[in-house]
Amino acid sequence: MTRSLLYEGKAKKVYQTDQSNELILSYKNDATAFNGKKKEVFDGKGRFNNLISSHVFHYLAEHDIPSHFIKKLNDTEQLVKKTTIIPLEVVVRNRATGSIVKRLGFEENRPFHPPLIEFFYKEDALDDPIINDQHALLLTDATDKELEQIKAYALRVNDVLMNLFDSIGVTLVDFKLEFGRDLLGQIVLADEISPDTCRLWDKETDAKLDKDVFRQGTGDLLTVYDTILKRLEAIK
Amino acid sequence: MTRSLLYEGKAKKVYQTDQSNELILSYKNDATAFNGKKKEVFDGKGRFNNLISSHVFHYLAEHDIPSHFIKKLNDTEQLVKKTTIIPLEVVVRNRATGSIVKRLGFEENRPFHPPLIEFFYKEDALDDPIINDQHALLLTDATDKELEQIKAYALRVNDVLMNLFDSIGVTLVDFKLEFGRDLLGQIVLADEISPDTCRLWDKETDAKLDKDVFRQGTGDLLTVYDTILKRLEAIK
Ligand SMILES: Nc1ncnc2c1ncn2[C@@H]1O[C@H](COP(=O)(O)OP(=O)(O)O)[C@@H](O)[C@H]1O
Ligand SMILES: Nc1ncnc2c1ncn2[C@@H]1O[C@H](COP(=O)(O)OP(=O)(O)O)[C@@H](O)[C@H]1O
Ligand SMILES: [Mg+2]
Ligand SMILES: [Mg+2]
Repeated sequence: MTRSLLYEGKAKKVYQTDQSNELILSYKNDATAFNGKKKEVFDGKGRFNNLISSHVFHYLAEHDIPSHFIKKLNDTEQLVKKTTIIPLEVVVRNRATGSIVKRLGFEENRPFHPPLIEFFYKEDALDDPIINDQHALLLTDATDKELEQIKAYALRVNDVLMNLFDSIGVTLVDFKLEFGRDLLGQIVLADEISPDTCRLWDKETDAKLDKDVFRQGTGDLLTVYDTILKRLEAIK
Repeated sequence: MTRSLLYEGKAKKVYQTDQSNELILSYKNDATAFNGKKKEVFDGKGRFNNLISSHVFHYLAEHDIPSHFIKKLNDTEQLVKKTTIIPLEVVVRNRATGSIVKRLGFEENRPFHPPLIEFFYKEDALDDPIINDQHALLLTDATDKELEQIKAYALRVNDVLMNLFDSIGVTLVDFKLEFGRDLLGQIVLADEISPDTCRLWDKETDAKLDKDVFRQGTGDLLTVYDTILKRLEAIK
């Protein structure tokens, strides 16, 4: 399979394959936080992200949630449908923690029923600012209907993933999704779902099993990512 | 009329009158910016704010837009309906300028059709953060329907005020509204509408005729407020 590098992001390289509608996502070993201001390389991180994200997207497909995911190619790479990414970070929160506590004064750990959905404008130069729906209509090519579709899609992903993580003893606190437009113009779930993009807390101990251990310097990234992968692999 | 001080804000004192459902707003001479970090006293400012805001609310009433406004009492005070303020700053933008340019990268002066509506959570301790509709539902007692009602209300105010200011040679660039709940539980437009709360640009010269001259130190506040008042008084 020939490939050409389309784009290199903070966490992945994106290659065009010889199929016009298929891309390879190649996971790097870089961990970044605070919009790239904190950075470190962890040998083996790319493998964890790829294997965990592949597992999660496979599980979503089994639960009737379509996505860009086609298949895992090897330890660090996966094949996905090519999309044009809509520059939104779609955040779903089941509990208050992190930025929203500081920003809006919610009590740490306060539950959100229904889950809270936030849009951030995916634009590094602006530090991914939070936006409302009307901003999203101005800053992206998504329509009003598509924004509603994205929110409903995000809530369905949340329902399914809450069950998945619950079954491995983990609380899904919050997570970030990205959506793209496929070659037919349809909205499709894209990017990755991993401890880089989710807050995952051990149900028993509340221990953080996600990138917060790196952001806050409170634990070993590879160890906690390995914990998530091992627990996911144990369920089938 | 007996009165007792209920609350002193950055720009006004609020007094309870002997009518349980009526308050006096007494305009102070203080100008503040950047959430109170910049502050200066301008003798006569309170009079300008009171007379301009009274004029604007009177004009709104004439154009079938109800509000808390009952009447002007004297140069610096007005009588209003008592409300419980919903802690939202409702911003309507006809053109991009100020924070939105920095925050979201819109081109300076870019028009918004339809006008852009933003909610900020009115909470000095958090620096009035921008929020989305779902946050507004969590942070205030407003319902979904009431938020839609507030947006429609804000757009009607915008339509009427664009005409008013246009007739005095001024572009209404953006402004901030506050809404309260009256004693019957109805949403009603409250607070003030003045060069403290609007961006007003001279149509011919683009000169700023609002608090930005104080924020940016580019002109004399009393002179430009006087210009707005004189032009408003000239139209009847
Ligand atoms: N199916 C897809 N089609 C096209 N682009 C994708 C797809 N899935 C993810 N991407 C994009 O791949 C890029 C690389 O990922 P990443 O390294 O996380 O980048 P970033 O630093 O921009 O977050 C991102 O811009 C992401 O949106
Ligand atoms: N009709 C009303 N009923 C009750 N409160 C009002 C009404 N109109 C305005 N207010 C409130 O009066 C207070 C004083 O105004 P201001 O000095 O501008 O205060 P702040 O510094 O909080 O902005 C504000 O909290 C404002 O929301
Ligand atoms: Mg990314
Ligand atoms: Mg005020």
